[in-house]
Parts: sequence; structure tokens; C-alpha cells
Amino acid sequence: MTNHIMKYDKGVNNKKNWIITESQFNSDLLGKCEAIFSLGNGYMGQRAATEERYVNETRNLFVAGTFNKFADNEVTELPNAADILWMDIKLNGHFFNLNLGTIHSYERTLDLKKAELTRRITWESPVGEKYDIRFRRFISLDDLHLIGQRVEIKAIDVDANIELTSGINAQTTNSGVQHFKEGEKRLFDKRFMQLVQTTKESHIDFVFNTTHLFKKDTQNIDADGLILMDRRKIYFNYHPIKLAKNETLVIEKLTNVFTSRDKDYQETEYSLGKLSEKSLAHMKTIYKEGYESLFDLHSKAWADKVWKSSPITIESENEFDQLAIRFAQYHMTVMTPAHDNRMNIGAKGLSGEGYKGHTFWDTELFLLPYFIYSNPKTARSLLEYRYNTLPGAHKKAQENGFEGAMFPWESAWLEDGEVTPVWGAADIITGKATKIWSGFIEQHITSDVAFATWQYYQVTKDEDFMEKYGYELLMDTAKFWASRLEWNEEKQQYHINNVIGPDEYKEHVNNNAFTNYTAYWNIKKAIEYYHLLKETKVELFQQLDKKINLEATYANWKNKVNLIYLPEPRQEDLVIPQDDTYLTKEMIDLTKYKNQENVGSLFKDYNLEQVNNIQVSKQADIMVLFYLLEDLFDQEVKRANWKYYEPKTLHDSSLSLSTHCVLACDMGDYEMAYDLFRRASEIDLGTNMKTSDHGIHAASLGGIWQCVVNGFGGVRMLNGQLRISPKLPKQWKELNFLIHWHGDILEVTATADVVTIVKNTNINQAINLSVYGKEITLTDTISVESMKI
Amino acid sequence: MTNHIMKYDKGVNNKKNWIITESQFNSDLLGKCEAIFSLGNGYMGQRAATEERYVNETRNLFVAGTFNKFADNEVTELPNAADILWMDIKLNGHFFNLNLGTIHSYERTLDLKKAELTRRITWESPVGEKYDIRFRRFISLDDLHLIGQRVEIKAIDVDANIELTSGINAQTTNSGVQHFKEGEKRLFDKRFMQLVQTTKESHIDFVFNTTHLFKKDTQNIDADGLILMDRRKIYFNYHPIKLAKNETLVIEKLTNVFTSRDKDYQETEYSLGKLSEKSLAHMKTIYKEGYESLFDLHSKAWADKVWKSSPITIESENEFDQLAIRFAQYHMTVMTPAHDNRMNIGAKGLSGEGYKGHTFWDTELFLLPYFIYSNPKTARSLLEYRYNTLPGAHKKAQENGFEGAMFPWESAWLEDGEVTPVWGAADIITGKATKIWSGFIEQHITSDVAFATWQYYQVTKDEDFMEKYGYELLMDTAKFWASRLEWNEEKQQYHINNVIGPDEYKEHVNNNAFTNYTAYWNIKKAIEYYHLLKETKVELFQQLDKKINLEATYANWKNKVNLIYLPEPRQEDLVIPQDDTYLTKEMIDLTKYKNQENVGSLFKDYNLEQVNNIQVSKQADIMVLFYLLEDLFDQEVKRANWKYYEPKTLHDSSLSLSTHCVLACDMGDYEMAYDLFRRASEIDLGTNMKTSDHGIHAASLGGIWQCVVNGFGGVRMLNGQLRISPKLPKQWKELNFLIHWHGDILEVTATADVVTIVKNTNINQAINLSVYGKEITLTDTISVESMKI
Repeated sequence: MTNHIMKYDKGVNNKKNWIITESQFNSDLLGKCEAIFSLGNGYMGQRAATEERYVNETRNLFVAGTFNKFADNEVTELPNAADILWMDIKLNGHFFNLNLGTIHSYERTLDLKKAELTRRITWESPVGEKYDIRFRRFISLDDLHLIGQRVEIKAIDVDANIELTSGINAQTTNSGVQHFKEGEKRLFDKRFMQLVQTTKESHIDFVFNTTHLFKKDTQNIDADGLILMDRRKIYFNYHPIKLAKNETLVIEKLTNVFTSRDKDYQETEYSLGKLSEKSLAHMKTIYKEGYESLFDLHSKAWADKVWKSSPITIESENEFDQLAIRFAQYHMTVMTPAHDNRMNIGAKGLSGEGYKGHTFWDTELFLLPYFIYSNPKTARSLLEYRYNTLPGAHKKAQENGFEGAMFPWESAWLEDGEVTPVWGAADIITGKATKIWSGFIEQHITSDVAFATWQYYQVTKDEDFMEKYGYELLMDTAKFWASRLEWNEEKQQYHINNVIGPDEYKEHVNNNAFTNYTAYWNIKKAIEYYHLLKETKVELFQQLDKKINLEATYANWKNKVNLIYLPEPRQEDLVIPQDDTYLTKEMIDLTKYKNQENVGSLFKDYNLEQVNNIQVSKQADIMVLFYLLEDLFDQEVKRANWKYYEPKTLHDSSLSLSTHCVLACDMGDYEMAYDLFRRASEIDLGTNMKTSDHGIHAASLGGIWQCVVNGFGGVRMLNGQLRISPKLPKQWKELNFLIHWHGDILEVTATADVVTIVKNTNINQAINLSVYGKEITLTDTISVESMKI
Repeated sequence: MTNHIMKYDKGVNNKKNWIITESQFNSDLLGKCEAIFSLGNGYMGQRAATEERYVNETRNLFVAGTFNKFADNEVTELPNAADILWMDIKLNGHFFNLNLGTIHSYERTLDLKKAELTRRITWESPVGEKYDIRFRRFISLDDLHLIGQRVEIKAIDVDANIELTSGINAQTTNSGVQHFKEGEKRLFDKRFMQLVQTTKESHIDFVFNTTHLFKKDTQNIDADGLILMDRRKIYFNYHPIKLAKNETLVIEKLTNVFTSRDKDYQETEYSLGKLSEKSLAHMKTIYKEGYESLFDLHSKAWADKVWKSSPITIESENEFDQLAIRFAQYHMTVMTPAHDNRMNIGAKGLSGEGYKGHTFWDTELFLLPYFIYSNPKTARSLLEYRYNTLPGAHKKAQENGFEGAMFPWESAWLEDGEVTPVWGAADIITGKATKIWSGFIEQHITSDVAFATWQYYQVTKDEDFMEKYGYELLMDTAKFWASRLEWNEEKQQYHINNVIGPDEYKEHVNNNAFTNYTAYWNIKKAIEYYHLLKETKVELFQQLDKKINLEATYANWKNKVNLIYLPEPRQEDLVIPQDDTYLTKEMIDLTKYKNQENVGSLFKDYNLEQVNNIQVSKQADIMVLFYLLEDLFDQEVKRANWKYYEPKTLHDSSLSLSTHCVLACDMGDYEMAYDLFRRASEIDLGTNMKTSDHGIHAASLGGIWQCVVNGFGGVRMLNGQLRISPKLPKQWKELNFLIHWHGDILEVTATADVVTIVKNTNINQAINLSVYGKEITLTDTISVESMKI
């Protein structure tokens, strides 16, 4: 499925490395650009389906946090809301559709800087009439409820009658699953269409308003039409608009979306009537404003909130590298519901139905580092989400016979608890669906949340967060682990049996190294903070003691923590067993499955039961442990394990390559690291047209940032200490980025042989850090340290 | 939307007037042929979507009687079951799709005789390779659970790799409404795919099995592939099959469908496990049989059950007339669940989502006459359905404060009662949805059922039916009417106020003539049978008395029946007021709305509230009264009313033209009648490509038969007496058909000046009938009466 449709080098001058281009249209390969060109603002996300429709398209609009469950044998998911993009355009009686007629020129571009999607086409209709057509679109970062579309149509060689059918279509589903009851449809002021839909089980009202404005060249014109209501649909059939040769018809379609789950309604009383009125008033305001003016506010918001506040520049001989990190930042902005601490990031962002909008460890391990270092406020909101889901985590612990907070492998709404689906793809041997065990036994998510909490705290020193949420999270997770440990009489150790570690090709294993080590770490941290709180924050200590029975829990920690089995490197080759049995399993030739074009191809030959018995890994496992707790293991052990596990790792998970890249940096293998970085960057970008069909790979985009800043940029928090030891690959001339540390902002510029660190702000008087093993202190604002490597 | 895509004259020799042809492909105009080419067997019906998919298609598979309700603000409807037609075919890497590449020849035909749908295409792929492709398809009338498909692909000028993706896709919805919970997906014997889906509220299990067989030319071949399961989907991706130039690849796809609502499970105990096993065993049997052999059984069933048992021949100078009546018979067979008396005919048959599979008066007034005269067993089953829905009719009466059986305007499952939706299309004045009042006040359906019951009885003399169902239906409906009548003190009459008559453009009217007369008739008939039963069937009388309190009800009838207001012709012009106010309303120029291309166009200028105040009718109203109770009114009155109402009737209902045709025959205006017959025939056939989008017009097809047999054929039952007085339009040379009468079969042959009636059977020794006013008696088998007109 490789081809040369995608171009990454079309931006020039001030657009250089800001532009991603689809250079040809192919209706068999719509998924990639629908996903990677998706727009959003964290409140909502929309796949980049086209105005006109195609058979293999996927039209998705998701509003963050609006989960609904369709049936008792399914799990909750983000419902696919009404399609408001859709426009049927007839040009002299012929539907505009790129599978008909002839395409003379075609270019669709995502401008990352302005977060604008544009299509320019010269199209010849089936009767040989030529038209220049340009589509533009944005989802406002300035006004979270607003979607703007604009179409310009010029008839090149004929006069034309242009017919538009457009409105709101709520017949959309999640692959056939309808989450909504149909609500009222109304036309207001002969101009504003309104449609209500309400999720069936969670009873969330969605209100959509949409309207059209028409211009001939720059002159506003009135267009008359017939209002129509079908099932779950309200739309206008506009009467033909006459367009003279060389005139341009401009159609602006402005839409807003509000829901009863909007944060406002946590505080103010809700009624559908009020929501409908409010949304209509908002519609009237934006209608007066018009597309261009709304778009300006939007692009200014991107400049201010993203590009000026978190700039990263890479001077590379491969300019794509600069684009790749911007692409990652773009999507991390688009996918993140920074406005609402009841919501988190889905594993496919808001760009597709994949993973149902659920939050995984992807947030804590792969995405949160970006926000912790670049936008601590958002990082805090994402962690507050985990705090807010404690009811669900407690429920899951209880259901499983444990104590404390057992975070769900897949997480949705606050009280939901575990929402991992139970059945997956076909088992080629049994002919049945394969059972998904992650929701039952992939338990490391709990220590992942604990680790991220601590990491956030260490980087930000946000004591307010810790007092309100952080300490409790650390204690409650450790409480879970203490209850989870199993005593092994023979070994006189605590074991953690029957789990899945990060490597999901090994189910029902005992003592997954990553799980055991991070559980141990979690309890150790809890003990440390137990003492701290008891001594320095007595009131908080008492509150927590009351809430989670801290004293008794502490006793349990103390009794068990040093008896937890922590797998050690084998003497003969320093390999740490990934779990109790991995090293004893059969080895097979994995060559044909290691090809990145063949992600998941192992399952064409083996079922999961068989895969469980082969020394093959889906993704980084021990390597993630090395990354998180890097000072526990020395270089020799890391190398030995790399040598053993890397050849057995298929990188069938998009979470894998970036971890390996950072590890390769740690081991000083920058050539390998750069190669892994490039491969990670090409999971969503690159030439493969099928990999993003179900949505962008959220964690992988966080991983790209990790490659750049944690890997080549050498930024790491180690035991509360900042370390900045950049080492650039030979392709890079310079790397520049900002990081937040203890409330201050540091600017880091690295070249092949010099690193310069500038303290741009002065919240704290002094910042201590280690650079290439040397301890330095930055004191005043604009204090600069340049060091030779 | 008129064009010359449709051809009705392509059948030659023994296919003459059996073939309907779509001669060009246009992906903007898919609805018509999807509907008119739909296949079925009464158990299920399937729209004629194509194997490959198009944006504006509608893929529907309905199984009769499997109603489900999606949400509390909707009504129950027939759910759109899994799509099993779908096949994605790739030819040397290019998807077969008629919007791509070049079509060198195209022809899609429905063969009415064999009930087979065939497509033949010569297609050039986008890279210039030519293929001959032929698709065939049937839904078995021999085995109600079976769907067969066959594809033949010949590469004309190259060797070709052919890839097939095909299976069962249960992501289908009713315009976005998902009625099913996803059930298990399984692959058996590496070959048979099974998918289960279960309606969410009514808990009906559907089990689908499908498999593929491959041949090169006539040689069976094995094809290997990868089994895949997505959400609500199970399918094979077959590995490419190499085809040499000029070789033909044959793909047969056989599917079966079973549900827990199948009649078997009324008697035997049901479990999903058993159903799944049974359906798999059935699949294995048909797999052994193969397409051709299964198809032969199917086409033989059509010959035996339809064409030999109910032949109608029309020798006309317009050969289309013969095709039109066959088309009507074809669809009346396809749409009618003759196998199960818990089911009835939907207003769009099983050919589209329109009217949700609901049964209207369309059955009794427009479709039942065909079955009564041609296939009394099926007619009886359809009436038994009404008897079986008495629980719903009682519920409706009670809810409305009445007694007896108040049949729902729209009817679905047995206990449902009224299922008419409450909201309709956009009101162009208020901007809101228009309220549909029929479910509340369109009440003549109750006397329509009574009339049909009586008509069936008079034609068949099926005393068994009457004793089990018929008398009770007549009594219980009359009981409703007696409770419904309203005393008007001023007029000292019983009125029926606030109704909708057959003409739905007049809501909330008082004393709709059709309603009052048929209610009167209904009570009169009940009184007549009250006496009969009391005297001759004492036991039954006592049962009914107990069941519906007959004695008291009779008293009520007697007190009221002769005081019912029956609108009389006005003295000045003999016009019968359609209701109390019709004749006083404003008249407007209706010319632009009378055009058959513009059905419903009145609502582009007026809303329903305004239409209610204009002298305009949607459809025949008084005319239906003249048709049912023809001997109550003399020719002069009929003519006067025709003259008054016909110009005001837009025929916006497809039920209208055929009634007017029969009336025109009664009035002796055969030129007008023939014109109306032609227009009625062209509602689904003809050149308009949009009229059938939501499904075929079931009642209109019954109407075509009525035009032929009741109209030109002059067959009528009048007060229990058979009358056969044919009069052919000048375009017809001869008309020949069979009718059932009192258990015997009569063959009628009419020419311009002679009618010949042959008694083909001898159940009754003598049949008395009136021919052109002359009473005759047919005695022996093969007794012939030829009469000069």
C-alpha cells in the first residue's frame, strides 16, 4: 500500500516544513489523510472526510468525553456525532465527485501552523466543463464550539448553474452502531438549521446549528432554497445559483456544536431549552462575524497557545524531521481536551473510531512528558482526570478482590471503571473471535499513573496539585499493589502472577519484569511520601489516613515491599527475563514479520495462543523499564538486553519505536536512534497509506517528541534532578526547544558540539541541573550556559 | 428526473414482456432499480443494490415480521438486516466500480418469469484492461431462507489477478438507526461464515451463513484466503486468483437467513444454539447443491405457484401493458408473507425503508382483491393477520375511550396497536416538523378491514374462516363504530367528527362521506350476521356474545345505525360533500401541481395547515366509496362527482389513479380509464427515476391488477353476486385471466365484442353470475358461456 501520494516538502518560505500535501486523489486510499489531516481543538475532533462523499470514506465527528454504551455486550465509546461537513454540489447538473469526470490538478494540504485544511482542484465534469474549486476548513482553537468551512467555485469556460444541498446529517454511526436518539429539528429565521441528538444511555444532548452564506466574488448574495427534513437530517436544497464564466461563487458554512456535558453545566443548571437557545445565539454571532474573521482569531490562537509557547526547531539535512515534530505537536494539541479535567486523550485522539476514544497508559508514558515539559497546566488537567476516575478504579479493584486504586486498562468516563472490549479479531485456528485479556490482567497501568504523577511533580514542583490529588494517587495506587502481591511459599517472595506486561504478545505470564519493578517502585514512593506527609503535612496526612486507611496500608507496604521479586540479569548473558517463562519459549525466524509494512502479519500464520509460546514481542517491554528507571540498570545490562530482545520485537505496537529510539540514545548508538526516530515519524506520515485508517497514533506522536527532547535533546528528570545532555544525530545541525522546569522556562539549543541553556524566566532563583555529568546552576533570568560536549 | 435509462421491450421470444431492463448505469439514480428490481419471497425481501458499493445506494434486507423499536420516541419498524450481497472485486489491483474506468456495454435485467436479476457489463479498468462480467442473483421461492449469487469474470485482453473480499456485513442501519445487538461471528470448517445479530428491543435472533464456491470455466477450484472479523462483520480476503486471458472465473456466493421469529418456533422450543446448528446444516446442504441446481428449483416454484396458477394475458397494441400486469404480480408475490399469518404486507413491500414495513388499508382495499380472486389461501392468511392483531386494535380502542376493535392506521406486530409515526417532513412556514395526524384520526381503516373480510367471504364462501375469524371481525369492528358515533343534538343525527378520510389533505374534518358510509355499512352488516348467527350458529353466537358482549352491542347498533348521517348529493349539482366543509373552501389554480413529475410539490408553496383550507385532494376519496359500494349511487351522481373532484385531485398518493381508472370504466369512459391505467402502471415503471426511491408502491401494484380485472375485466362482487362485464379499451385485442369463485376457478377471455367464461373446476355444481346484466348459470366443468357485448 505504498505510493507517492504524500508530499512533505511542499511548504516554502514562511510555510517551510509546515505543510503536508496529498498530491493525488485515490478513493481507495482515503483513510490516511482523513486521519492525519483531522482537525480539532480538544473539545472536538473531526476526520478529514471530504465535502462530497465516497464509498470507503469514514465521516467522524467526536466531542471529547461524551461517552455512550450501545448495548450490554459492548463497552462505552465516543459516539460519532452528526456529519456537518457534507455538501452535495451540482455543477450544471453534474455532481461534483472526483471519481467522475477528469482531475486536471489536485492538491490537498494541511497547514500545521494555521491548522487549516485546504483543497484546490481543477476539475472537468463528465460533460467537459472545467471548474476551479477550492475548499478551506478549520475547527477553531479560539472558540471551541466552532467549525468553519468555505468553498470557492469558479467556472472556467462556461456559465454555470450551481446547486447546493447541505445541512446536518445525524444518520452517522460508529461502524453501524447508533448511539443517539433523534431529537428535534428546526429551522430558525429561515436560515439557521438546528438539530438535536441525545445519547441513548448516557443521555447527553448534542445541539448543532449550521448556516450558509453566499458570495459572488466579494459581494454577498441571497440564496433561496427548500428546507428539508428526513430522518435524522435537516438540510437545504438551494435553488440553482447562476454563475457567469470566470465569476467565483463563495459558500461559507458555519457550524457550532454544544453538548450537555460541556463544562459549564457542572456549575450552572442545565436544560435542553437553554442549551438550544445559547447555541442559537452563538450561531447568530458567528454568522455576523463570517469565515475570514473567525479564521483569523483561530490562527492567532494557534500561534499564541502552541507555536510561540512551545517552539521546537530542528535543523536537519532531512527537513522532514522538522515537519514531523510539528506534526506531533499539532496533533497533540488537536487531540487533547485541555479544557476539561474530566476528560483525557484517546489512543487515536479524536481522529477515528479506533480504540473507541479510550485512554490507555499511552497518556502517562508517551504523551504526558510533552505536556509536563511544554504545557504543565494541561499535564495537570490530564492527571486530574485520573484522580477524577478514582471511583472507577476503586470499583475495578473491588470487583477483582483487591484494595485501593486499580486503574482500568482502558478508561472512559469517571465512574466507568474497566472498559476494554472483550473480543477482538478472528482467530485463524478456531474460527472464533480472539479474547482480549488486557482489561482483566494488563495491570501495570496503575504504576504508570503513579509514575507520571511523580514525574509531573518533580518537573513542576506543583505542591498544590500534590496536596489535592498527587499524594493520594501515589498512596492509593500503592495500596492496590500491596493487595495484589501474591506470596510464594517456596521462594519466600511476593510475586505478581497472571499478568500481561507492556508486551501484549505474552498473556498470563508470571512476574513480568516491568510490572514487578514498577509496582515495587510505586510502593517505595508511597512509603517515602508517607513519612514526608506524616512529618510535614499533618492535616493532609490525617485526611488521607481517613480516606484510604493509611496507617494500616503503610504496615502492609513495609511488610511486603522488600520481599517483592525483582528479576535480575542472568549471570551468563545479563539478560533480564521479561517474565518467568519468556526465555524458555520456542524461537522462530521472524524476518518476514519484522517488515514495517506488515504490522500484525504474524497473525496470518499463528493465532494468539501460538504466539504466546514463541519468543516474539509486540513491543518494547524491558526497554520501557530502562527508560523509566534508567539509573537502576547499567549500560552493560541495557546493551545485553537490547541485543537479546530487539531482534524479537516486531514493533507491532506504535508505542515501541520511540522507546527504542530513546534507549538507543542512552546507549550512545545515535545512528540506530536516528533510524528508529525516522521509522517512528513515518507511522502516521511516511508512505504507507493504510496504517492510519483507524486514526492517528497518539502515543507514537508523543514518542516523536520523546525521541527529540528526551532522546537527542537528552532531557531527563532523574530522581528529581534535571539532566540535559543533548547529543544530535549526524544529520542534525541544531536543535532548539523550550522546557518548563519548576515553573521556569529554559531554552535549550544544541549543536554538534555545544549546548546552550538559557533561563528565560525567573520564578525560582536558581535551577540546578546536570549537563554531561557536570552540575551547573542557572540563577537569573536570561542566564546562559554554553557547554562543549 | 426523466430519462431513457429504462427499457421495457427487451424481452423477445419466450421472454417477451417478461423483461425489464436498465440500459445505462448512473450512480445518481440508483434508487429506482434498487426498488423495482428488488427480489424476495415474502419471507424476506432485498433491494437490488449492487455487489460493489456506491455512495447513494441503499442496501436493504428485510425479513418480514421482525419488527423492532429503536427508541421511545420512534415507532417499531422492520430492521435492515446484514448486507450479504456485498463483494469487493479487484481486477489486477483495480477495484471493479462503474464510476471508474469505462463502461463498454451495460445491461441489468429483471426476468419476471424466473425472478432473476442479471447484470452484464463489459468494463475497462482505469488502466485500460477489459473484462466481461456477469452477475446473477435470486432469492428462492422454493426455499424461503436462501439467497444465491453468481459472478462470472472473463479477462478479455490480459491475464488477470482477481481478488475478492466478501462476507457478511451487519453494520447496515435503517437510515442510521441500528436495531441490532452484535452477536457471535464464527467460521466453520474454514469455509462457512456465520454471523448472529439480535434485535435490541424485540430480541429476535437473526442467523446468517454464507460461503463461496469458485470455478475456472466449469472446473471447481479451491481459493485460499484470510478470514477477518471487524465490528459486526465477518468476511474473507481471498488471495489473488490467477486467471488466464479468455478464461472465466465463476464465483458463487450462497447465503441463508433464519430468525427466531420463524414460524417453526411457534410450535417447537427455541434456542439460539439450535437455530445456529440448523442454519449451518442447511448451509452445508445448499453448498453441496450449488447455484444452478438451487436456481432451477426456484424458477420452477415461480412457474408453479405464480405464473401457471394466476396467468393473465393482455393482447395490447402497447405491449408494455402485459409487462405491467406481470410486474404487479411479480411484486405482489415477492412482498407478501404468505407463509405466516402473523405477518402482512408493508406499504413498500420489502423493497425499501419507506413506511417502515407497516401495513395500511393498502392491503385490504388495493392488494387483497388480487389474492381473493387469484390465491384465496394467501388472502385468508392476510385477513387472519388482522384477526391476530385484535389485541392491538382493542388496546387502541381503549386508549381512545372506545369499544371493540379500532384497527391502527399503521400496523406492525400483533400487540403493537397504533404505530404511525407522529412527525413528518418540514413545515416550510413554521420551520418545524409537520405533525402526522393519521395515527390519531384516520379511522376508516376499521371499516376497510370489515369490508375486506366480507368481500373475501362472498367470493370464497370460506365458512371455516368466517366461523374462526370473520364473524368476530365484522362484529368487533361494528362495535367500535357504534362507540365512536357522536350524537348531534341540533341535527338529531349521529356524526363522526374530527377524522381524516382517504384524502389526507383534509385533516380534522367532520362527517367524511367515505368514513360515515362505510361505518354505516359495517354496522348494518354486523346486524345482518347477528341475526344469522343467532338463528343458524347458536354455539358460535354464544361464544361471540361472551367475547364481545354481542347482545348489548346489538342494542347499541339498532339504536344508532339509522340515525347515522350519510351525506347526500347536493340538489343543484349532485355533488356529495366529501366532508362538512370541503365545498366551502378556497379554490386555487392547481395546474402546476397536477403534473405527475411533481408529486407532493404543493408543499413547496404551502404548509399542511394551508392545504387543509384549499379545495384540493391528495387522492380518491368519494371515488373509493363509489368503488366499494357501487350500487348505492347511480351513474349520474358518479359522473357529477367525478367532474367536481377529479380536477381537484392531485393523485399525490399512488392509491389514487387505479381507483379513478376503475371508476372511469364503471362510467363507461374507457379512453380516460386506459389513460389512468397507463399512468398507474408508470408509478414504479415508466421513466421517472426518483419515484420509487423509498420502495415500490405496493397498493399501486394491486391497483394495476384492479384496473385490469375489476376495471376492464369488469369483475365485481356485488352483494354476494358475481358480475363479469368486461369492456376492453380500444388498444386491447384480448384479455384472459382466471378467477376463483366459491372454490371454483373460472377462466375469462374477453375480446372487443365477445366474452367467454370457462368453468375449469367443479367444486360447486352451479355458479350463478351476471354478465352484462344477464343472469347466467355455469354448471359443469368446462362449461363455456360466450356472450356478445
